[in-house]
Formats: sequence, structure tokens, C-alpha cells
Amino acid sequence: MQTVSENNCFGGVQGVYNHTSTACACDMTFGLFMPVEAKDGPVPVLWFLSGLTCTHENAMTKAGAQLWAAEHGIALVFPDTSPRGDDVANDEAYDLGQSAGFYIDATQSPWATHFQMQSYVLHELSELLFENFPLDEQRQSICGHSMGGHGALTLAMKTPGRFASMSAFSPICNPVQSDWGRKQFTAYLGADESEWVKHDATHLMAGSGFNGPVLVDTGTQDQFYDLLKPEGLATAMVARKQNGTFRLQPGYDHSYFFISTFMEDHVAFHADALYGVTA
Amino acid sequence: MQTVSENNCFGGVQGVYNHTSTACACDMTFGLFMPVEAKDGPVPVLWFLSGLTCTHENAMTKAGAQLWAAEHGIALVFPDTSPRGDDVANDEAYDLGQSAGFYIDATQSPWATHFQMQSYVLHELSELLFENFPLDEQRQSICGHSMGGHGALTLAMKTPGRFASMSAFSPICNPVQSDWGRKQFTAYLGADESEWVKHDATHLMAGSGFNGPVLVDTGTQDQFYDLLKPEGLATAMVARKQNGTFRLQPGYDHSYFFISTFMEDHVAFHADALYGVTA
Repeated sequence: MQTVSENNCFGGVQGVYNHTSTACACDMTFGLFMPVEAKDGPVPVLWFLSGLTCTHENAMTKAGAQLWAAEHGIALVFPDTSPRGDDVANDEAYDLGQSAGFYIDATQSPWATHFQMQSYVLHELSELLFENFPLDEQRQSICGHSMGGHGALTLAMKTPGRFASMSAFSPICNPVQSDWGRKQFTAYLGADESEWVKHDATHLMAGSGFNGPVLVDTGTQDQFYDLLKPEGLATAMVARKQNGTFRLQPGYDHSYFFISTFMEDHVAFHADALYGVTA
Repeated sequence: MQTVSENNCFGGVQGVYNHTSTACACDMTFGLFMPVEAKDGPVPVLWFLSGLTCTHENAMTKAGAQLWAAEHGIALVFPDTSPRGDDVANDEAYDLGQSAGFYIDATQSPWATHFQMQSYVLHELSELLFENFPLDEQRQSICGHSMGGHGALTLAMKTPGRFASMSAFSPICNPVQSDWGRKQFTAYLGADESEWVKHDATHLMAGSGFNGPVLVDTGTQDQFYDLLKPEGLATAMVARKQNGTFRLQPGYDHSYFFISTFMEDHVAFHADALYGVTA
């Protein structure tokens, strides 16, 4: 693992690191904010998964999350959104291939060689982080935006007991019903739709749901509202009486101006869950 | 004036607008954050001038200022850092020409045709803003970073009575003694150094200073510390008993992670001065 940069930030350190990933068979870069409390021992960690076209950098520089993470003594991890490199499969579309990993493990050629983002986030990057930084493996929560909101919700529901809480900004809620999902799942997973539903937040919520609190924010002026398909997830949450909150924010869109506006709420929501775990 | 984008943000609106500038003889873009209070009437305004290599966008997306501006009911203006365009003079160096206007009016060829950033900010953009948005012309303050810190301090000291307060993050404090200054002033203003000192914060501070409060933050790990030359400005502030604070922040560097960390302090500092004006 190599240090790309480290900058003091809200009393802690915002770092960027590079390492060679076995899961993705390429070099991967991630951001990590460590609050000052990490000097005294392991701190809770909030994963933040970003959306289409993003790298590790977008949320790290534009979401304003470090302020609130510092206030609550929580670390933030910003993984990349896909494998990258000249020898990594790609597509001309912005929503397939590099920058569009969808946080799943591809089974189909040519994607399977590198596109193993579920394994990368849940296992490889995770192990790297807990080995190298004072992070408390018993206190993890997860958040994300858009494709990363899909990632946060699905990875949390796939791993019961791992994450204390899950939240999302404008998540892709029902990819098997959306053009943000059907094309990618066909490419990465093949034509068998019974494989797709394992990676769909609405289906997972309608199934076993999530054993912890859930917070979802979506803007009423989101320019991608029709692609996000929030109605299915909201319905599934209500149907199973999920411990959770689904908020529609009047006038807000899909941008980081929306995310930064409500980041305080999301970090405080996760802090309640993270500190409750050991309280 | 054309609207490039408008996004809801912390209850207000973050807009980006484009207009044809007479002063700079080209199209110019700026960002403007309007807090929700602007719906009820004119609000105070804080100008934020950015540094070398920046556009209107960097501080708007990375400084986290809207949160605090919304809290205090203050508008934020983010001008560009120079004229731009294929027919605008430029230089291969990152610190001369486009993106490096230094907030002065050039008198020398080929720069004088477009590089009129002092007139643009103080007059043309200002008039455009007060004509088109509910901003209180009697309540203005100014802040900036690096080259924009130089801009904020010098424009405020050049216009006594206009700005209620001035502040800067890692400003270029003494350009006539720095490689961030001597090359640019030679190009834009010519070889006569007696013209340069009119645009040097240290010289202006040693002269008539500023009739209002001053706040300067510089990181002790600033990678450009030697180019910023903070010692002259600090000495001049102490020598004339300037109402002001000069802070050295341990471990912080020149980045937006530094700016965002202390933005709360700067906006609160300006809010005190802005609301004090009419209190």
C-alpha cells in the first residue's frame, strides 16, 4: 500500500492510498478520513460508496462529510467505483464498465476478470483497512449515493450483522426494473434475471430486509428520479415494517449540493447506531 | 446574463451564471449562493476569491461554505480567477495568464485587453449582482485563498468603507517580494516597481491598513509557505495595531481540506461584522 497524499482536515487526516488489488486484478485507490480520536485507539468506520462517473475523490472533496465525522469521532472510507486501467474492460457508455462497477461480482466475460467490486469492498479493501489503520471492525456502517446508494443498501442487506446501519442519498432502488440496472446486470451477470434480484435493494428489502436502522433521502427534483425507482423500496419498507425513514426532500436534485445539505443528518444517524452497538 | 445551473443547497440555491463582460472583453462565469432569507429581502454578501489554477467552481464545490452561509443568512459570490477564451492572452505557466489574473487591472500588452480583474470584481460583476439579485450593497465582506487571499486583502484595502471585514486563507501576502508576484506584476503592470506596491497586501497594511476586522489563517505545513511570505503582513499588522488576527494552524497545508476546516470561523467572523454594520 502506498500513500498518495495526506492532508490535515478537521483535526484529523484525509488520506489517499493506492494498492494492488487481487480481487480486481489492478491497482486501486481509496480515500480514508481518520478523526483525531484514532490516535487513542480504534474508531468506528462509515463506508461511503459513490455513484456513476465518480472515483474515490468526488465524495471526499465535495460531500462535506469530514466535518461531521470529526464531530462524532468516526472514520470515513471512500472506495473507488470500479476497477480501472488500460487492460480493464470498458464501454463507451458512462454507465457501464469503468466508473460503473455497481458493487457486484461480475460472472460474465469480459467483465469477470476485473469487475469484482462486491468482494473488493466487503473483503479485500476491508481487510487492508483493518490491518493497517486503527479502525474498529465491530463498528461499521455504510452509506452511498446513486449507484453507491444501491451498493450501500445491497451490501448491507447481503451481510446481516456486519453493518450497524445503512443509508443512501438518491439510491438506485430497483435496478432490475431500471435502465440503470438491466443493461449492467445483463453484461456483468448474464441474462438470467433470477441472478439479478440478489443485487436489488427492493427485492432484498422485500425479503429479509435489514436488521438495523435505515435512512434514505431522495430529492423531489432529482433529474434521474425515473431511473432510481424509489417507489418499490419505499413500499417494501412499509410492507415489512422496516426500522427506517424514507425522506423526499422538496426541490433537491441529484447533485453533491443535495448530499452536502443532508450529510449532517446521515453521519449523526450512523453515529447513533455505531455508538449504540457498544453502549 | 444566462443561468448555467441552479441547485437547491442548504435551503437556498447555488447558482452558476454566465455573462458577457465589458471589462474583460469576454464571457465570464460566476457562482452565487443565495440563502433562503433572500426570499424576504436583500441579504449580506460575502465575496470569495479563489487561487491560481481555479475557476469559479473550486471553492463553490469544495470549501463547504454554503453550510455556514446558510446558517448566517449570507450570500456567497464565487467569481472566476481570470478572463478566459481562445482569443485571451495566455502563458504556458500555471501562474501567469488564464487562471492567474491576480485581481489587478493589467496595463501592458498583450494582457491589458482582457486582464481587468480588479475592475471586473469591484465594478462590473458587482453592479450585475446588485441589479439582478436581492443582495444588500451596504453589507459586503470579502475572503479569499492564496492568490484570492491576496485579492481579498488588497481589494478591501483599496476601497475603504466598502467591505465590513476581510479575511484570507493562506494568502500571498507580499507579492512584490515573491515569485508569486514579481513575474506577474512585471507582465501585467510593467517594470516600474512603484506600481506594484499598490497591489501588495503588506505594503497596503503598512500604509493605511484596513478600517475593520481582519482574519488570516495560514497552515504551518503549507507547501507554498515561502512564496506566501506571511511574515511581512503579520509584522505590518502588529506595527500599526490593526484590528485583526493572524493565525498559524499547526499541520495544515494549502489545500481545500485546510480551507473547509476553518471556513466556519471565517463565515462567523464576517457575519459578526456584516450584522454589526446595521445593528
